[in-house]
Amino acid sequence: MKRSPYFQDAPVNYLFQEMIEKRKAFQKNNKTASLISLGIGDTTQPLPPFVSQTMKDYATKLSTKEGYSGYGDEEGCKPLREKIASAVYKDLVFSDEIFISDGAKCDIGRLQVLFSKDAKIGIENPSYPPYKESTLLYRGKEHLIELNLHEDTDFAFDFKQAEYADIIFICSPHNPTGHVRHKKELEEIVSFAQKQNKIIIFDSAYSFFIQDDLPRSIYEIPHAKEVAIELGSFSKIAGFSGLRLGWTVVPKELSQIHKDWKRITSTFFNGASSIVQQAGLAALQPEGLKEVDRSIQYYLKNTRILKEACTNQGWKVRGGKNSPYLWVHIPGKDSSWELFNHFLEKMHLIITPGVGFGSNGEGYIRISGFGQREDVLEAAQRIQSQ
Amino acid sequence: MKRSPYFQDAPVNYLFQEMIEKRKAFQKNNKTASLISLGIGDTTQPLPPFVSQTMKDYATKLSTKEGYSGYGDEEGCKPLREKIASAVYKDLVFSDEIFISDGAKCDIGRLQVLFSKDAKIGIENPSYPPYKESTLLYRGKEHLIELNLHEDTDFAFDFKQAEYADIIFICSPHNPTGHVRHKKELEEIVSFAQKQNKIIIFDSAYSFFIQDDLPRSIYEIPHAKEVAIELGSFSKIAGFSGLRLGWTVVPKELSQIHKDWKRITSTFFNGASSIVQQAGLAALQPEGLKEVDRSIQYYLKNTRILKEACTNQGWKVRGGKNSPYLWVHIPGKDSSWELFNHFLEKMHLIITPGVGFGSNGEGYIRISGFGQREDVLEAAQRIQSQ
Repeated sequence: MKRSPYFQDAPVNYLFQEMIEKRKAFQKNNKTASLISLGIGDTTQPLPPFVSQTMKDYATKLSTKEGYSGYGDEEGCKPLREKIASAVYKDLVFSDEIFISDGAKCDIGRLQVLFSKDAKIGIENPSYPPYKESTLLYRGKEHLIELNLHEDTDFAFDFKQAEYADIIFICSPHNPTGHVRHKKELEEIVSFAQKQNKIIIFDSAYSFFIQDDLPRSIYEIPHAKEVAIELGSFSKIAGFSGLRLGWTVVPKELSQIHKDWKRITSTFFNGASSIVQQAGLAALQPEGLKEVDRSIQYYLKNTRILKEACTNQGWKVRGGKNSPYLWVHIPGKDSSWELFNHFLEKMHLIITPGVGFGSNGEGYIRISGFGQREDVLEAAQRIQSQ
Repeated sequence: MKRSPYFQDAPVNYLFQEMIEKRKAFQKNNKTASLISLGIGDTTQPLPPFVSQTMKDYATKLSTKEGYSGYGDEEGCKPLREKIASAVYKDLVFSDEIFISDGAKCDIGRLQVLFSKDAKIGIENPSYPPYKESTLLYRGKEHLIELNLHEDTDFAFDFKQAEYADIIFICSPHNPTGHVRHKKELEEIVSFAQKQNKIIIFDSAYSFFIQDDLPRSIYEIPHAKEVAIELGSFSKIAGFSGLRLGWTVVPKELSQIHKDWKRITSTFFNGASSIVQQAGLAALQPEGLKEVDRSIQYYLKNTRILKEACTNQGWKVRGGKNSPYLWVHIPGKDSSWELFNHFLEKMHLIITPGVGFGSNGEGYIRISGFGQREDVLEAAQRIQSQ
């Protein structure tokens, strides 16, 4: 059997498994401890009622002879593509540049198929693990270029390392650090990509959390359509993490890539679930958007509460204002796992070790604002009583 | 930009596009003609009411604080995996060998990632186009081995060509020919794969259409778990073509491949839509299965009606009995496109040119039994009045 050699290059990241096991072991010895998880980046607020009702109506429709429909367009249904173009992008992109997917993670995998095997992929360290893992499994470790990202340089983009990459993944608001790239930074990155003939893959999964006047999309930057693909997701903005819906923008300015992406979606994909596309369309209607914003504000308030608690302790805290994530360092504690144990044992809180997102995350933890308010308030109190 | 060179190897298959254009042109000149499509393999019967109700209940649940849930397991929810193991496989496979997907087509793409770049993939000619297209786009044409499949040899498996392949795609009931492989044939193929250290990918998307005592799963064959992966789909069996739900079985006997597939699903995939998984679970409950069978019998009756009409004309007709597809040749007409035009112009029927599934499909057409009964009866009449 001809096994892909790349599995050797990509040892399994046991981060979450290890977190679960440590949690279990702790609970076994501390049966009465009431643990609160601020660890995983999963939504907790109920689905907006308007969105839920739309799915119910569509389910009814599918059970009638007149309302039933089967395969949809692999690229996504037209009304949803049009709605994303207008409601999310204010017509900065055309609807036929938007390809609906079953989530950003799946498209991160499929995007690898666009580029030749010898293309080098630049990935920030730390970052959302699937960028790196799909690169390793698709083309092996010699095609991975790590771009350094450090809190103490204010998360400056690593132009030096990026020279070696053909494709560059950027995430803003950034997971795990919560950092949002300013317009000027993105202008420099776009200009760099233009000059050096590189492609940017811009992950905007958390764009709806941006409250300040900062770019929500790479296409707010002049000429970005000539160099950038953008990933979007309904998971975090509308509570669709389990329903699975996202999109990828491939501008027509990237002419051949636009055509090739069309080919890939129709060969390796068969469209996102029709009922979920209807739900996505509902989430972007004025009524849906109001409910979506209510959830976002809820998570942001959670994050503010946690940020204040951490700041009051004299800890170094980044992110949070335009992102559901806090990136935290406690002076004197230089190991992410030491911090994990400290939170677990002293505060009965589950957080995510920063080192799980890349070696430069060592010494940091990611705290997420996804959760129920009562848990967040209790967590804040436990932090402050340290 | 480092474009994948494999796009050159895989020119776009314009089959369906060409069909649409020919149809449009015909309609422009024949405004009053009432066309009936027997062409595409898409379901037309409404979703079973029990399945629809389950989705509605789940949508309601998601809109409550207590009932909301986000990310599910990437491998699929446990109850659904267990239900497939018992209801579909009669416990021939274990639930943790079943990986839930958003449809067979997507997994056909992801399966490519399992094997090294130099693995050769054996694909029957004719066959469902994504096997070939994903192979070309993933590893290029020099890694494609075409296995001949001919109606006049009773669709005998091409062992001679299969010698050169490392991985072999088999589909039964077969799309497009409607042929179902007998137990003895599958035993020979499994034994061949065992001796020659090859992996079979067995596509069982149409298994529920099998009415006779023929294998519905490759795992009914002794030792198949040592050599075969199986694809399954809710699309055709329960009308989920637009909802997107399928599965892949990777037996633990394929030890390393089982582990690697787990890795691929968690890296390139984030789980099938939760609401659709609930719908799948409903479809496999006794009440759901009854409704599912009603749809299957409906399509099979359609197929019988069409088969009789074609046979009465003295045409050569294969398939149909245990499959929704007929594979038809009209003596004296040796071009698929000639047949397409004949059906369009003389009968106002849309069928699929067999050559679209591979060069060995030339001279044949695929007629599908998916459609409304009144259309099928009318189509049968048009055929018989030829």
